[in-house]
Amino acid sequence: MKKDTIAAIATGITDSGIGIIRISGENAIEVGDRLFRLPSGRKMLFKAESHRMYYGYVVGEERNFVIDEVMAVVMKAPRSFTGEDTVEIQCHGGVLVMKKILAASLFCGARLAEPGEFTKRAFLNGRIDLAGAEAVMDVIHSQNEYALASSVSQLKGILSEEVRKLRAEMIHEIAFIESALDDPEHFILEKYPGELSVKIENLSDRIKKLIDTAENGKLIKEGIRTVIVGKPNAGKSSLLNCLAGEERAIVTDIAGTTRDILQETVKLGEICLNIVDTAGIRDTGDIVEKIGVEKAKESAESADLIVYVVDTSTELDENDREIISLIKNKPVIVLMNKSDLKNAVTEEMIQDLFREEGYPEDSFQEKEVITIRTSAREEEGLDIFEKTVKDMFFREEIKSTSEIVITNMRHKEALQEAFDSLLLVKKSIENGMPEDFYSIDLMNAYASLGRITGEEVDDDLVEEIFSKFCMGK
Amino acid sequence: MKKDTIAAIATGITDSGIGIIRISGENAIEVGDRLFRLPSGRKMLFKAESHRMYYGYVVGEERNFVIDEVMAVVMKAPRSFTGEDTVEIQCHGGVLVMKKILAASLFCGARLAEPGEFTKRAFLNGRIDLAGAEAVMDVIHSQNEYALASSVSQLKGILSEEVRKLRAEMIHEIAFIESALDDPEHFILEKYPGELSVKIENLSDRIKKLIDTAENGKLIKEGIRTVIVGKPNAGKSSLLNCLAGEERAIVTDIAGTTRDILQETVKLGEICLNIVDTAGIRDTGDIVEKIGVEKAKESAESADLIVYVVDTSTELDENDREIISLIKNKPVIVLMNKSDLKNAVTEEMIQDLFREEGYPEDSFQEKEVITIRTSAREEEGLDIFEKTVKDMFFREEIKSTSEIVITNMRHKEALQEAFDSLLLVKKSIENGMPEDFYSIDLMNAYASLGRITGEEVDDDLVEEIFSKFCMGK
Repeated sequence: MKKDTIAAIATGITDSGIGIIRISGENAIEVGDRLFRLPSGRKMLFKAESHRMYYGYVVGEERNFVIDEVMAVVMKAPRSFTGEDTVEIQCHGGVLVMKKILAASLFCGARLAEPGEFTKRAFLNGRIDLAGAEAVMDVIHSQNEYALASSVSQLKGILSEEVRKLRAEMIHEIAFIESALDDPEHFILEKYPGELSVKIENLSDRIKKLIDTAENGKLIKEGIRTVIVGKPNAGKSSLLNCLAGEERAIVTDIAGTTRDILQETVKLGEICLNIVDTAGIRDTGDIVEKIGVEKAKESAESADLIVYVVDTSTELDENDREIISLIKNKPVIVLMNKSDLKNAVTEEMIQDLFREEGYPEDSFQEKEVITIRTSAREEEGLDIFEKTVKDMFFREEIKSTSEIVITNMRHKEALQEAFDSLLLVKKSIENGMPEDFYSIDLMNAYASLGRITGEEVDDDLVEEIFSKFCMGK
Repeated sequence: MKKDTIAAIATGITDSGIGIIRISGENAIEVGDRLFRLPSGRKMLFKAESHRMYYGYVVGEERNFVIDEVMAVVMKAPRSFTGEDTVEIQCHGGVLVMKKILAASLFCGARLAEPGEFTKRAFLNGRIDLAGAEAVMDVIHSQNEYALASSVSQLKGILSEEVRKLRAEMIHEIAFIESALDDPEHFILEKYPGELSVKIENLSDRIKKLIDTAENGKLIKEGIRTVIVGKPNAGKSSLLNCLAGEERAIVTDIAGTTRDILQETVKLGEICLNIVDTAGIRDTGDIVEKIGVEKAKESAESADLIVYVVDTSTELDENDREIISLIKNKPVIVLMNKSDLKNAVTEEMIQDLFREEGYPEDSFQEKEVITIRTSAREEEGLDIFEKTVKDMFFREEIKSTSEIVITNMRHKEALQEAFDSLLLVKKSIENGMPEDFYSIDLMNAYASLGRITGEEVDDDLVEEIFSKFCMGK
């Protein structure tokens, strides 16, 4: 299907060295040809070689004067990102220049692209599947190396490949059942339920394994929601500064949006900690004060990790007891801070206090709370802290970036639905139901997985997914 | 001279569709080759065709995993922006991705480029002259179409060409004088002072004409510093909103920095008005109040244009008299606002009041103050206002974008120095001084103009100019 021609600024819209205006669609080359001139003044883009960069000028046809000095490149269908004829114009990265060239391309017959429309076309033209399209956006917005590596793997199709394998095996069984039902003389189903049962077990296991990565996936993609608690002057702020360190500037310009929800994103090695600002606990010594406790409870409730900072130069007291009672059902790391000063608090005293307060409330936790001696002043113990966090949350999964990690909730839900359908197949087998029951649920599982790669999606879902994309992609 | 290899992110560093990492220098291709792999995994950039885009992956050598799916292009010396071997890598426009690829290129042997270093190399390698290099930055930062058009003209060398012509004529005369002094037998200088006088007159006129464009140039580049005054409820805010109109959003993302100095940049057609916030006048009816008057005076003093908004449905009073006395020595446009309501104020009454207050104090102004009937509510009169501002400030010069307009103070100063040196030549001729006097001042004029194109600059000036550039350019 031929498509109309769209255009957008593809690079960041801030004053910078280079900007790119991307034009894609049936008439992209015609539009580009009207915009672009060689230094001699000649038009030539209509006969440009694909993938070769040409130096020249963009001329605003409307008023016939030179807008900017540029490089232009034609990428002929299907060898382009969208799979359509595409022209990219590299201009100076001024906001006004980029907008003028975009406006000129609209004047010459393109229309303004919707957010995500280039990627949507790549999907609709079969250049990438839906998981690949989503990975494009994940690559752009990834906030740490693991998230990036996982997104790039999905861009390369590692998830889609596994999904296709699973689906192929399912459709093989479905086809067998259907054939057997159609042609009972040539297919004998007698031993089949037993065989299918083994196969379903295998399929379920593989899907379960994928689903299980989703929790890590979420932490990788979004960071570990961390709440730092402790009495005033325990050294929470210096710890935060220490963690943020020289990375803080970098972090800030990545995570602009997270500031809106009052959290600080800190990169700890390659892990992101989203540190929730619990001003109520942080700023008042009156930990028992109602508001402070409520806030602490709320924050602790939604936290993936509690970091409890103890000033080891000051004796433990009722405030510490209060804090522990709030956090005892959560993953906790105790930082025994100011370890360079005199030690009024030992590790044993902390373990005792936690035990007295009934830690761990949650039986999945370690019996002893994890403690680390730190000195924010001397930057001691932070490497151990980093390693501990990694061990707590990622274990072995994160070590290999070539493994599939589910980072997208939509994918997780589709996998879960497929898993549930396979459970029904298992039940039908156990209950000795007729074979056509198997095939209905297998078909559902098959369809659920098809939603990941986009082989089975309706237009609304496609619209919804691409509407979240940024302009120019 | 071979130069070390530099790298930087050339596109805007915000999450976007496409990002470019630019690598330039002696080992650029080697660095690029270590980063880039074809989908097959093969390295090939070392044998890439110049100016052809290749699809593949960037691999972080340090940890040997895929960072992103990219397009890579090699531009071989001297056919690149810098004149050196250059590699550009187009990746997904995520902030982290761009930084990772930059980091990988540094790991592979490049060093981080300084701001403006690519353009500086283009200059040092003789690809562009100094005025051209400055025009690159002006193109990027241009805030309106005229500024852009003027910068692009200078990028194309229109100013440099005129400067070179002027210098060629000067050096011709210098050479003639020197030869005549060296070899008096073959050169007769008798009639020469008269001939030279005519030539100097011509050179001076052409230089003067360039200098005279600088005032327009400044307004074009920086916008017209506008102060809106008037009594409360005269309709100043609605006027401002009306002027800003749908352009406001666009204006805001261009002019982020100007907000710091408390002004609003409004695009009126293609002219920029920098509207100064005179809260002192705007927000209080007590115009005679000391602080308000002081602020108004200060603002009016530095304004290029005063827009005085009069509510024609309310009688003129002492406050109006106060306002007029503050602005009478400035270019003023009176907007007779609320012209859709009853008219308590006529144009005559305004002219009378201005006359009574001694307008125009400045003899260069119109004898009658310019008045325009407007209705912010009905958006009436704004087109006339726009035309009036254009006529007041730009007259005919702005109509042709192919004429040279001096927008750079450095250029203006150099031209002024050349002009002054030529004046000295004229004086020497008038005073009948010996010919070697002419050649000294002509040489000075020649050197001054050489500073514009960079043929005569010292390293410090070059450093200073490029240090103002942005990263990645």
